Amino acid sequence: MLLKTQDYNSDHLHIPPFNFAVVDDGIFRSGFPDTTNLSFLKTLGLRSIIYLCPEPYPEANLEFLNANAIQLHQFGIEKSKNPSMEIQEEKIRGALNVLIDAKNHPVLIHCKRGKHRTGCLVGCLRKLQNWCLDAIYEEYKQFAGNKSRLSDQIFLQMFDISKPPSFLDRKS
Amino acid sequence: MLLKTQDYNSDHLHIPPFNFAVVDDGIFRSGFPDTTNLSFLKTLGLRSIIYLCPEPYPEANLEFLNANAIQLHQFGIEKSKNPSMEIQEEKIRGALNVLIDAKNHPVLIHCKRGKHRTGCLVGCLRKLQNWCLDAIYEEYKQFAGNKSRLSDQIFLQMFDISKPPSFLDRKS
Repeated sequence: MLLKTQDYNSDHLHIPPFNFAVVDDGIFRSGFPDTTNLSFLKTLGLRSIIYLCPEPYPEANLEFLNANAIQLHQFGIEKSKNPSMEIQEEKIRGALNVLIDAKNHPVLIHCKRGKHRTGCLVGCLRKLQNWCLDAIYEEYKQFAGNKSRLSDQIFLQMFDISKPPSFLDRKS
Repeated sequence: MLLKTQDYNSDHLHIPPFNFAVVDDGIFRSGFPDTTNLSFLKTLGLRSIIYLCPEPYPEANLEFLNANAIQLHQFGIEKSKNPSMEIQEEKIRGALNVLIDAKNHPVLIHCKRGKHRTGCLVGCLRKLQNWCLDAIYEEYKQFAGNKSRLSDQIFLQMFDISKPPSFLDRKS
């Protein structure tokens, strides 16, 4: 991964996307990657991208995906301060199914700024990992900063990980 | 790692330490873990801890380390807004040597609040990984927040990864 020895002392500087971070083994998060970030993304050896906006994916990014056999999973969640809880939940559950399937790793989750939609998906993953709510909020705020939304924190609080039993049916 | 299936739907809630995050494959960072965090730390399967404060390690934490065969590597950097660049650099280089040796992974880096000393060490690792300075500062600020220090950013800017060639002599 990132710590490959051949990376040391190379002259080429990597530019990670805005709000980039490692979420877990083989899971990354960020804001929207632009073309200056593609050489960095290449070092992650991604197998898939979970894209949480409804807008079409840019042509340059699609070319990068095709050239590197990266699968795009799009779950278009409207940018809104008060999205319908049902719609948001359904899409987040779809994205979570892709996210927890190790066959899709390494995977990058991103939306526009890597704050709200990405923060909600990562927060739901943390619920699955049995993190306490305080730690989930703290991580959410670390990326959303002064744009943190109470509606997202309520969503995270209400999100029921025990609800659909089919939810954990992985295809492996 | 964290995504083990047996973790799903367990009733036991994990409490990660303050400012906890994944830095890279097998590398974690946080503030000082207290006894409420130990069951969470256990899930990480740590092989070592890099501790960046000069104060002795608390008895309860030492017991946890002994019980789980976790090696403690202490590099006591004084808590100071303007530490001597030379002293800080020497200790950070020592810590970095331990950090990049995969034999020590999974490894947790921590100081008191997981902001300054930990942020400097992670920033030096990012330099080794060829991250651009902007991205290194952004990550530093994500954890230091409004406590971000210009002196740390200058330290990161000046830190010379090409300096001692022995630096990359791993014992593997």
